[in-house]
Amino acid sequence: MLDFTYYNPVRLVYGPGSIEKLGRLVPDEGPVMLVSGGGSIERNGVADALRTQLQGREVVPFPGVEPNPQLDTLLRAVRLAREAGVRFLLAAGGGSVIDGTKFIAAAAAFSGDDPWQLVTGREKVRAALPIGVVLTLPGTASEMNDGAVISRKNPTDKQPFKSERLFPRFAILDPTFTLSLPWRYTANGIGDAFVHVLEQTCTRDVFSPLQHRLAEGILSTLVECGRALRERPDDLDLRGELMWCSTLALNRLIGCGVVQDWSTHLIGHALTAEAGLDHARSLTAVLPWLLRERFEAKRGRLATLGRRVFGVTAADEETAARAAIEAMEAFFTELELPVRLDPSVVTPAVLVRVLGQMSAYSKGLGEDGDITPDVVERILRASLG
Amino acid sequence: MLDFTYYNPVRLVYGPGSIEKLGRLVPDEGPVMLVSGGGSIERNGVADALRTQLQGREVVPFPGVEPNPQLDTLLRAVRLAREAGVRFLLAAGGGSVIDGTKFIAAAAAFSGDDPWQLVTGREKVRAALPIGVVLTLPGTASEMNDGAVISRKNPTDKQPFKSERLFPRFAILDPTFTLSLPWRYTANGIGDAFVHVLEQTCTRDVFSPLQHRLAEGILSTLVECGRALRERPDDLDLRGELMWCSTLALNRLIGCGVVQDWSTHLIGHALTAEAGLDHARSLTAVLPWLLRERFEAKRGRLATLGRRVFGVTAADEETAARAAIEAMEAFFTELELPVRLDPSVVTPAVLVRVLGQMSAYSKGLGEDGDITPDVVERILRASLG
Repeated sequence: MLDFTYYNPVRLVYGPGSIEKLGRLVPDEGPVMLVSGGGSIERNGVADALRTQLQGREVVPFPGVEPNPQLDTLLRAVRLAREAGVRFLLAAGGGSVIDGTKFIAAAAAFSGDDPWQLVTGREKVRAALPIGVVLTLPGTASEMNDGAVISRKNPTDKQPFKSERLFPRFAILDPTFTLSLPWRYTANGIGDAFVHVLEQTCTRDVFSPLQHRLAEGILSTLVECGRALRERPDDLDLRGELMWCSTLALNRLIGCGVVQDWSTHLIGHALTAEAGLDHARSLTAVLPWLLRERFEAKRGRLATLGRRVFGVTAADEETAARAAIEAMEAFFTELELPVRLDPSVVTPAVLVRVLGQMSAYSKGLGEDGDITPDVVERILRASLG
Repeated sequence: MLDFTYYNPVRLVYGPGSIEKLGRLVPDEGPVMLVSGGGSIERNGVADALRTQLQGREVVPFPGVEPNPQLDTLLRAVRLAREAGVRFLLAAGGGSVIDGTKFIAAAAAFSGDDPWQLVTGREKVRAALPIGVVLTLPGTASEMNDGAVISRKNPTDKQPFKSERLFPRFAILDPTFTLSLPWRYTANGIGDAFVHVLEQTCTRDVFSPLQHRLAEGILSTLVECGRALRERPDDLDLRGELMWCSTLALNRLIGCGVVQDWSTHLIGHALTAEAGLDHARSLTAVLPWLLRERFEAKRGRLATLGRRVFGVTAADEETAARAAIEAMEAFFTELELPVRLDPSVVTPAVLVRVLGQMSAYSKGLGEDGDITPDVVERILRASLG
């Protein structure tokens, strides 16, 4: 294993009905800003449950955080939070709402002129309002980590940032709230979590058998329960397992001590920013082609993943590794996730802009820094077919 | 999965040389009590490293915490800590030293008359001195959990207790310090960790595939790396893996959402208290016989563990489950851990006293509460052969 520090102080509260513990988890003092997205919490019962739990508290609602949360939207929330003297931020939603809330938390406590510099890292997050989470859309694991991804326009950009001060104080995982999710969002969450795990375990191999086995355990469960959920979308036990899989996929635990490769995510971010793809769908369309491009470096882990996760029986490493990529594609396809980019969406003009964003990574992406912009172009053209 | 809350704020710092980060982790103010055991830290380099890291700090040494830490010893530390105005406790050792330090932390901040009541639970831990850990003997996972086991004489007793206030602030896992361990202690740590995992996964099955797979990942790694270490005891990579396995075996993660069965541990505690057995060796001598006694309830999980951890190929569940027990015995035996109690140590007179302690559990141990004192007697007599 490589050296690591693991630290994660989030209090994770899991279970159908766990929303009923919210009232005791939110600190007693001051107004609470309730941050949410496009209105689904009014339809899925979350808003009602929150009203019950926050009865008697001053609540400042801030709905309307969009997918790929935008700087402009979030700055409006920051102004509102300051005006209202908000002391606690409660995020009710999925990764975009939680990520947006993390930015609001840091920016509201920031005294500089340009909060975007908190995202670029030119300014450190030295303070933040405390955050709590009610998760309604599993996938990103933002509910149990210290990171966020924020987008802006003029110039178009989408950047990750993180700070220990942005760990939520608590996260409520109540799978009943996911029962009303359309399949597309359910599948997106499974795909996102799958790729999170892969980017932490399908890399240049260092001796870290436990970490790899934990990662494989998450992958196996995503595959087994994801397939079963496609047949039985109302199964609460399956939804609970998949929720917990998504959280553990990126709460930093499985990334300890191993080589990581976030190239699929960084390419995907550019595709989302420039072509408006769903985050998860940008990932599943890129991943197989990136694995084929980087086959020699990853074949050892790919073969093991094929055998342990997908039941590949080939004795030969190369055959097993290629079968693993095909098994991943078959799994994504079963979930109705794309394994190719759509040329009518990623047009030649869009491709130019995506590759333009890649010039920021001229030193090369990937665990060995060899996914240079021209390699990204090969990967995207292969996916476009 | 069953409902659960997971919370673990320990900062875990892993790696050869990670001891060099200690100076920055210990808070700046006030005297530090250095709690240690029988003197091994003077021989294995830990004491020298600590002197370097704590240079310029007032250090109050408290060596001599024994295996199965005793109330009387710990109360001396409490008096010393109060006299010296100690503000931070640094535990350098294994589970006994860390557990003892947790008791010191709680008792030093306790204003009542009888600190043993913190252990019995009649008094709550309402405050505690902060704790840091330098782990030298992996096994109990006390470095990353909120529990401790404390012993006393007159009357003889050994009891677990826990409180969120007893989580260490940080734990340093530097595997180089384990290179000098005699094989007996190394094997004890592996055996202890193995049984910790088993008591959280080899139980009445509820639908929790991810939790079981994480547990199986730890078991597989313990078996694979434990066997390899027997051949190559100087292999630092293997020692690092086994250290991390032990920590994850009981940092509360794999116990979330599953049915737990701590009967082997509770029987083992009585054997340690009455017959002086090493903690781990009491466990490995009891476990196989307890599994045979409770075979019908556990055969489903046993069969899966046999297949996934030990490569058992039998299609029939009963055959696979019995093979799993035999594979565990073979593994313990390879590590020179006992799979039977020694009748010259657990004499008829000792057995009577052990069973006397079991009368405290007249309602029955185990996940179904059906390991009554007479069942314990059958298990112990089977192990005695």
